[in-house]
Amino acid sequence: MQQLQKQQQMRAVGGLNARPVPRPFAPRLSVRAQTSTLDKGAAASTSQPFGRLFNFSAGPAVLPLEVLQEAQADLINYKGTGMSVMEMSHRGKEFMGIAAKAEEDLRKLLNIPSNYKVLFLQGGASTQFSMIPLNFAGPEDTTDNIVTGSWSKKTIDEAKKFSKANLVAKGDNKSIPAPSTWNLSPDAKYVHYCDNETIQGVEFKSVPDVGNKVLVSDMSSNFVSKPVDVSKYGLIYAGAQKNVGPAGVTIVIVREDLVGKARPDCPTMLDYKTHAENESMYNTPPCYAMYVCGLVFEHLLKKGGLEAVYANNVEKAKILYDAIEASNGFYNNPVDPACRSLMNVPFTIPSNPELEKAFIKEAEKLNMVQLKGHRSVGGMRASIYNAMPLDGVKTLAAFMKDFQAKNV
Amino acid sequence: MQQLQKQQQMRAVGGLNARPVPRPFAPRLSVRAQTSTLDKGAAASTSQPFGRLFNFSAGPAVLPLEVLQEAQADLINYKGTGMSVMEMSHRGKEFMGIAAKAEEDLRKLLNIPSNYKVLFLQGGASTQFSMIPLNFAGPEDTTDNIVTGSWSKKTIDEAKKFSKANLVAKGDNKSIPAPSTWNLSPDAKYVHYCDNETIQGVEFKSVPDVGNKVLVSDMSSNFVSKPVDVSKYGLIYAGAQKNVGPAGVTIVIVREDLVGKARPDCPTMLDYKTHAENESMYNTPPCYAMYVCGLVFEHLLKKGGLEAVYANNVEKAKILYDAIEASNGFYNNPVDPACRSLMNVPFTIPSNPELEKAFIKEAEKLNMVQLKGHRSVGGMRASIYNAMPLDGVKTLAAFMKDFQAKNV
Repeated sequence: MQQLQKQQQMRAVGGLNARPVPRPFAPRLSVRAQTSTLDKGAAASTSQPFGRLFNFSAGPAVLPLEVLQEAQADLINYKGTGMSVMEMSHRGKEFMGIAAKAEEDLRKLLNIPSNYKVLFLQGGASTQFSMIPLNFAGPEDTTDNIVTGSWSKKTIDEAKKFSKANLVAKGDNKSIPAPSTWNLSPDAKYVHYCDNETIQGVEFKSVPDVGNKVLVSDMSSNFVSKPVDVSKYGLIYAGAQKNVGPAGVTIVIVREDLVGKARPDCPTMLDYKTHAENESMYNTPPCYAMYVCGLVFEHLLKKGGLEAVYANNVEKAKILYDAIEASNGFYNNPVDPACRSLMNVPFTIPSNPELEKAFIKEAEKLNMVQLKGHRSVGGMRASIYNAMPLDGVKTLAAFMKDFQAKNV
Repeated sequence: MQQLQKQQQMRAVGGLNARPVPRPFAPRLSVRAQTSTLDKGAAASTSQPFGRLFNFSAGPAVLPLEVLQEAQADLINYKGTGMSVMEMSHRGKEFMGIAAKAEEDLRKLLNIPSNYKVLFLQGGASTQFSMIPLNFAGPEDTTDNIVTGSWSKKTIDEAKKFSKANLVAKGDNKSIPAPSTWNLSPDAKYVHYCDNETIQGVEFKSVPDVGNKVLVSDMSSNFVSKPVDVSKYGLIYAGAQKNVGPAGVTIVIVREDLVGKARPDCPTMLDYKTHAENESMYNTPPCYAMYVCGLVFEHLLKKGGLEAVYANNVEKAKILYDAIEASNGFYNNPVDPACRSLMNVPFTIPSNPELEKAFIKEAEKLNMVQLKGHRSVGGMRASIYNAMPLDGVKTLAAFMKDFQAKNV
């Protein structure tokens, strides 16, 4: 019975297989007490240091306050160097040190094997959509693409321009098709999937089994949110602006033997080799964004690394999914509990969609912002990346109960 | 006689034709007095607020202190929004306002005609090297390329991958070939040149006459350093990290009728249309870097716009070139005075190149840093972008005289 409960809890938050389940969230205040606090408007419980809000943006997104404080302190004169990091030559020893430390800390965090290169690029994940086929396939080669939401749909559309892009499986935006139904090509140059669909809130809970094929993953919106076995991948990429830093830097982790095979007409700047051979400094990299990413990596290591980060994320997501489940259908998250995202929690008010606007507006009054769902799906979406404080999630869950009580 | 002197002054600093010459720099201290001040090591005259140094880096480069102070003040909570600009959704009203203001101010600064789009992209000027031919030419089309230094050499090398790239003229890294010798193609899709060669310090002083051809210019290292008649160009591009902001944003100004003609195999993210149709927000732009650029544009407008900025740059450059000329050959700048850069001043000590290391080291002790020349050309290079204070240039010139006196 206990075992069954544990499994159910795990299922509710879409936890990774074979990982310990953090204990369920036990609120210290009763729902009523929380509700009455919230009723006071911008009450004490929703106040944060420096007048900051609970920012549920899907990206660019909340960053750790400690990181921002450090960046602020060093902005004009970085640690006695007499200049801002924004002003440093990327080839000077100060910035080279910052870049090396950022890579080193990321390698520690994700336990990246030594036969993988870590690249700090520009152009966002959207640029990777073309770089991947241009580097790994010829125009007549097959590429395998799993589609589970908006981002992986964009990926296959771009892959079609540069390869024979095979649709391995297409999800219904609420679930991941069973692997038994996947139509993998025998000769595909790689298999691409999106580990977390930011818009739909659909997340893979284990590494897809694609045999000995090269596995490529878009981890933009759940990068460094959980431990990942990098050795199972050919390439992992992530735009930084969710869990890692400011927009404008894209992190690519690529197995060395896959680098150097770009087709002849690949633009120099889209060739992984260009960047791998030059330690991401073929041209001027996005230095300041890399610096902030480095501060975030250091912060995550101090927090105990990705096991601790993951446990925290499971706890936060459980609070929100539990709140939705406890609402008796007032709130709805359409996603199969087996693949509910720990990062992006979309939900609606199905009985009365008109209430959604009021929900968003009232939440704003309580200092909870950016809760509007993506324009393509509507409703609400709470993005609860690493840096979203537990208090933010608790406050939102309490408000959800309160709002329901007033509007049933 | 006065007229001749004026012309000679103009020639010495490579001033634009038909522009007023700012009055020559008249030092308040005698050379001896300056020298003795500098002899005291990190003396009062080389101290700056907040322990900042005089940073002569070629890029990323010095930014206006006022801009850094404003960015610092607002880093954790931007003007009461409750979040950092780094944390803002790029589609939220706060950041949309920041982006719109940045574009508006840039349009004012450069007086950009309404039939030009302003794009904020990623990937640096190096990515433009492929974007330009991919958007403006087919594989069998001719493109015209003027080579006057390292960067325009890189441009033609990349253009060769995507077009029949014609070498219009090749400079000797010290001068710009006379237009009468240019080998322009009758059918070229565009003519590309680099307005300021950062490494060699070779700068165009007027807009090249290419008839009714589409003129494309790399203005990375002299962007917003002087007024420019945008209407003479098809496209202007610039990496931000010299005069404008942090590395990681590339500004493109492109005539609308040239957008939408990319070849079919152009990656979506390298198609100007993708960005022009989406106000640079097809995907997440480099928001924080754009924000800082916006602060710099605002700052330049406050300073009186580009006429004032240009006059200041002429004054600063004149101080250094005069110091070189006055050294009786101890220092040498190899560039034809008709095209000496106002931004990047390379110089050597030809009689004793061994002294160059000592020069750089002693300058560092006096808080003047990043004076080492590019690794491909050696010697020294003083990059004196918009944000380099006049005092920085004066201090360097005084040190040059002092160093010479000690080492003749």
